[in-house]
Amino acid sequence: MKQLFFTPGPAELYFTVETHVKNALNEHIPSVSHRSKAFEGIYREAVQNLKDLLELPDNYHIFFTGSATEIWERILENCVESQSYHYVNGAFSKRFYETGLQLKKNPLHQKAADGTCSSVNTSDIPDTTELIVFTQNETSTGAAQPLSDIYTAREAHPGKLIAVDAVSSLPYIDIDYHKVDTVFFSVQKGFGLPAGLGVWLVNDRCLEKADQLATKGINIGTYHSLPSLLAKAQKNQTPETPNVLGIYLLAKVAGDMLKKGIGRIRQESEYKAAVLYNLIEHHARFSPFVKEAKYRSSTVIVAETVVSSSEIIQKLLERNLVIGTGYGTYKNQHIRIANFPTHSREKVEMLADYLQAM
Amino acid sequence: MKQLFFTPGPAELYFTVETHVKNALNEHIPSVSHRSKAFEGIYREAVQNLKDLLELPDNYHIFFTGSATEIWERILENCVESQSYHYVNGAFSKRFYETGLQLKKNPLHQKAADGTCSSVNTSDIPDTTELIVFTQNETSTGAAQPLSDIYTAREAHPGKLIAVDAVSSLPYIDIDYHKVDTVFFSVQKGFGLPAGLGVWLVNDRCLEKADQLATKGINIGTYHSLPSLLAKAQKNQTPETPNVLGIYLLAKVAGDMLKKGIGRIRQESEYKAAVLYNLIEHHARFSPFVKEAKYRSSTVIVAETVVSSSEIIQKLLERNLVIGTGYGTYKNQHIRIANFPTHSREKVEMLADYLQAM
Repeated sequence: MKQLFFTPGPAELYFTVETHVKNALNEHIPSVSHRSKAFEGIYREAVQNLKDLLELPDNYHIFFTGSATEIWERILENCVESQSYHYVNGAFSKRFYETGLQLKKNPLHQKAADGTCSSVNTSDIPDTTELIVFTQNETSTGAAQPLSDIYTAREAHPGKLIAVDAVSSLPYIDIDYHKVDTVFFSVQKGFGLPAGLGVWLVNDRCLEKADQLATKGINIGTYHSLPSLLAKAQKNQTPETPNVLGIYLLAKVAGDMLKKGIGRIRQESEYKAAVLYNLIEHHARFSPFVKEAKYRSSTVIVAETVVSSSEIIQKLLERNLVIGTGYGTYKNQHIRIANFPTHSREKVEMLADYLQAM
Repeated sequence: MKQLFFTPGPAELYFTVETHVKNALNEHIPSVSHRSKAFEGIYREAVQNLKDLLELPDNYHIFFTGSATEIWERILENCVESQSYHYVNGAFSKRFYETGLQLKKNPLHQKAADGTCSSVNTSDIPDTTELIVFTQNETSTGAAQPLSDIYTAREAHPGKLIAVDAVSSLPYIDIDYHKVDTVFFSVQKGFGLPAGLGVWLVNDRCLEKADQLATKGINIGTYHSLPSLLAKAQKNQTPETPNVLGIYLLAKVAGDMLKKGIGRIRQESEYKAAVLYNLIEHHARFSPFVKEAKYRSSTVIVAETVVSSSEIIQKLLERNLVIGTGYGTYKNQHIRIANFPTHSREKVEMLADYLQAM
């Protein structure tokens, strides 16, 4: 058996990617000019397939960046003048908050212990806050903020913008995009693509905010400011020479997922998550790191291990199954298992069987 | 015959790329964690091969970004407090200058007519300037600033930083890196790789400048500030999940070029440039857009056409040869031909023969 990656990103490629790469090479996609009609067609296909797959409202735009990390910076530059408010519950939400510190956007934060999420007390968020940030799926700990919490924040603060980091939960997570303003992900997780592309979903309210900031003389960046991205997107282009191959592969994989049906992808994801959580809840050597079921991610399953996790990981490697270590200080105490659309039920059941026997 | 791209970027892939892509897929490179030893090995190989190929001094570092366009922004954020000075002679050098305007870095500029370069009068550059910017190879017009002009600026202003945009001239151009401070390129031109990766060469003086700006409380960016890039590079890593496949392919192609020898690549480039310039100088329907030979690029050859260039381009397309249109307002009046390392002498001679017969 070839190695099979259950790492939470970069992850196993979506099972159609290799074929699409070969087609791309045959069709000279990497040599195509990013100012050509051919590229505009690729761009249009990627955007349309994503809009269909995620059921994006008409007031949303899709922009491409180099990474999701870049999007942290761009959201804060374009949507915040003087204060953002961050729900922090792990390494990635903390870095988003720290990006706000670096940009001197006076970010506030509400910190939850690792492996859990803050309950959203909307009166904690000051009137002066312009943007509320949720890391919906903390890849470092496997804690996921329930969408209902995010919608609660919207109802209490309809005038503020809401940003959702869904890096490792899309396309699984079924977001009501009317109740948030900007959402982003990176392609190397749920979409099973080679890394090097961030995807930024942005509604008109964010664009208006960026225009307001620019009018006030505030630095909103250059080629990847929202007005610059929008101007090119309206021509199905990007400000810079982008990762053309990455956009092509995203178009194709989003198309494959559309054919399979997002409902079926979500249903299968929930079944596979149940298999994995059931295993780690009832196994003597594992327990879920996220104790409260309502905060458990369906796409990144994190287990505490009784023995050093490197022992588990090594045993699985001998069977060509690659799972993730714990993140940061949890490196040797956790295993992290990605449950992405490319992971079939059969493969997840096989992994569960091996873990069961340990 | 398969289509052959002489477009000035994205361009024809380096002739070994397809094999490297297949190997990458077999070796699961896109699934490898960017925090793993395996990735660190890829990173180290890319950096070492580039350092060897370009003969970089020890005080240089190599960083990766999403694009060369990103590097315009990052150089200005990290190396300029209050004034940059730009030699502008085409669309790309103009955009670099405009990036300075957007970032409120009070850029000054010296404008040359399209198709030529400014002679460097070092007394024009004010004492208050911190960074002098040269677009060594203007991809829009085929005008190249002689390196001796750049070194003249260095001798007159040893205390200032010098940035060189060599986007479409590396690895051909033989820069004395001791006489400049930062140089950058994008991989989809001379290196013949899929787009989606900028390569930023930076010496210690730039790093010191970024530290000084940060100490003063000036915004130098976040994950892609020079201190952040350096901290990760010292571990052979990147701040974000990067274009891992792109870095892998760069490592391999730089290795292939090392085996061929940079001397031979440069020699062949000059031979092929001579073939193309000789043709367009003596052909009734073409003439070099860059009139003064000393300003002619060896890697991007631009010809004015008597008839609409679309007619020429269309005729070559029928023979599966793809050349570039003119840039911007020159779209129908120019052809642009890339002369990159992947273009063999035989292929360039074939293209020249077809052009000759027109």
